[in-house]
Amino acid sequence: MKDIKNKIYAMVKNDLDAIEAALKYNLNPHIDLVAKIAGHILFAGGKRLRPLLMILSAKLCGYKGKDHIVLSTVFEYLHAATLLHDDLIDEASTRRGKTAAHLIWGNSETILTGDFLLARSIRIATETNNISLMKNIAEVTEKMSLGEICQLMNAGNTDISEKQYMDIISGKTAILFQCACRTGAIIANVPEKVQKALSVYGFSLGIAFQMADDLLDYTSETKTIGKNVGADLKEGKITLPVIYALKHACAKDRATMEKIITNNVFSQDDFKILIELIKKYNGFSYTRQCAESYAADAKNALLFINNSETKNILIDIADYALSREA
Amino acid sequence: MKDIKNKIYAMVKNDLDAIEAALKYNLNPHIDLVAKIAGHILFAGGKRLRPLLMILSAKLCGYKGKDHIVLSTVFEYLHAATLLHDDLIDEASTRRGKTAAHLIWGNSETILTGDFLLARSIRIATETNNISLMKNIAEVTEKMSLGEICQLMNAGNTDISEKQYMDIISGKTAILFQCACRTGAIIANVPEKVQKALSVYGFSLGIAFQMADDLLDYTSETKTIGKNVGADLKEGKITLPVIYALKHACAKDRATMEKIITNNVFSQDDFKILIELIKKYNGFSYTRQCAESYAADAKNALLFINNSETKNILIDIADYALSREA
Repeated sequence: MKDIKNKIYAMVKNDLDAIEAALKYNLNPHIDLVAKIAGHILFAGGKRLRPLLMILSAKLCGYKGKDHIVLSTVFEYLHAATLLHDDLIDEASTRRGKTAAHLIWGNSETILTGDFLLARSIRIATETNNISLMKNIAEVTEKMSLGEICQLMNAGNTDISEKQYMDIISGKTAILFQCACRTGAIIANVPEKVQKALSVYGFSLGIAFQMADDLLDYTSETKTIGKNVGADLKEGKITLPVIYALKHACAKDRATMEKIITNNVFSQDDFKILIELIKKYNGFSYTRQCAESYAADAKNALLFINNSETKNILIDIADYALSREA
Repeated sequence: MKDIKNKIYAMVKNDLDAIEAALKYNLNPHIDLVAKIAGHILFAGGKRLRPLLMILSAKLCGYKGKDHIVLSTVFEYLHAATLLHDDLIDEASTRRGKTAAHLIWGNSETILTGDFLLARSIRIATETNNISLMKNIAEVTEKMSLGEICQLMNAGNTDISEKQYMDIISGKTAILFQCACRTGAIIANVPEKVQKALSVYGFSLGIAFQMADDLLDYTSETKTIGKNVGADLKEGKITLPVIYALKHACAKDRATMEKIITNNVFSQDDFKILIELIKKYNGFSYTRQCAESYAADAKNALLFINNSETKNILIDIADYALSREA
């Protein structure tokens, strides 16, 4: 479904160009090494979905000011900060098709550059002089760190529940999407009802997006997603397809799955067996249904808002979240 | 000079008790593991100097509100966040007399708890609804991360200049002291002149404090400072006593010093030779003079402010910064 992606990105080309320029201009690292490490993760072909969502939300809400482009960088910097720390934590080898930063520059440098990006994003947020916005961003930053810790604590836990999975993906993905969309509404000064609608849109989209991402980890190819297929499982991340299959498998199949999951040097053949078992117990189709349901929630949240070109793009993005290949 | 410390801590006992209670109450980590890791670094007998400075500055400026105690935790949480990341980066084995957190709970858990503490401190700052204050704190957080990176980039650099050293200790210590003191003045709503005076006091005190700390790394005993003597050098941190001695040594002595410094498994005997050479070239006495000069700057900054018990305590703290043994 490259069509949707191309269609969306053609419609937002000017915004994307503005985001790229702002990401470069506002990084402002003073130190060459920080520019290199932050640049490595920031300028490796990310989709810029978070800043784009903020900008589109602001437009949908009739925002006419000039602060939205700079402010949108907050959401990409925050995202990049978590990627730097996460890849180190997960001992990931690639990200966005490139060698992970910590393998090039070292762990210490990567930790500190992550800290810088986190601090930089907060600092940009303070420059708006908007307290409600700063509070939202600070809250999300805190919750994101807790979400990551929650994920880490559940690494390799084959008894993880769907509820725990939802908490983790809320923290690691959905609340930042939510915050980006809500921020767009906040700066446009729209009534609470509209802020809430964009909040629901962002959160639901984030959940759908992450579920689709978790599916891709089993169904895509390494060169397409820019990281290793099966990487989640090797990092001990047990996602919805597996959780659902484990829950519904007979004792024998569950034992086979658990053996593969808990062996972090599982072979390609093991991985194929696991995939067949996930299919047998509808782990993929259930996850896809859930993702579709959240994408529908996202679209429904915007129902009462007047139709516009921007609204159509936001709806297209919800469809894209499901159909994407990378 | 335990007398000064005891005198100060007797006078501020109520404030310290309030800080301890607030540090426990506001941590609010939701997750048990975070409570354990954050608690390990937070409740291991830190001096609480940063929150104390904020509270005393607020009092000096006639603050009568109730927000100062909660707000003071920002400065201890931020400090603890940097300690968690730094100890991991430095591969330090002990901190405040206890095993470093990353050796007990692992690197990933420690990175994320540091991220949580950083985010938590920003979030508490936003709860004041004071924009100028949030801006200061966000700016300092950003500069601290850059200071740490600057230190890392200069690890083992025997050509490091006194100017580079000053930049590093400003970033890692002085600007947080400065921000704590300035914050006290900001919440008390005093004129810019008084805010600036407390800003200068905090910054100068922070420099004096860090220089005294860097001296202790050569002159104290492990059990007294709660971390390993000579640890700075083993971590590649070349501090003022060494910088000054290297600059003034003859070629032969400089070569001897460089050989020891760049060997990160130097022996106790090597360390003794190095100390003798630092003494020969007045590295310790020069550093002490510099620290004394900054402590004097700190005290002078308060000259125009009316005398009070609180002012006396702040002056005592400047003396304590120089005389402390740990």
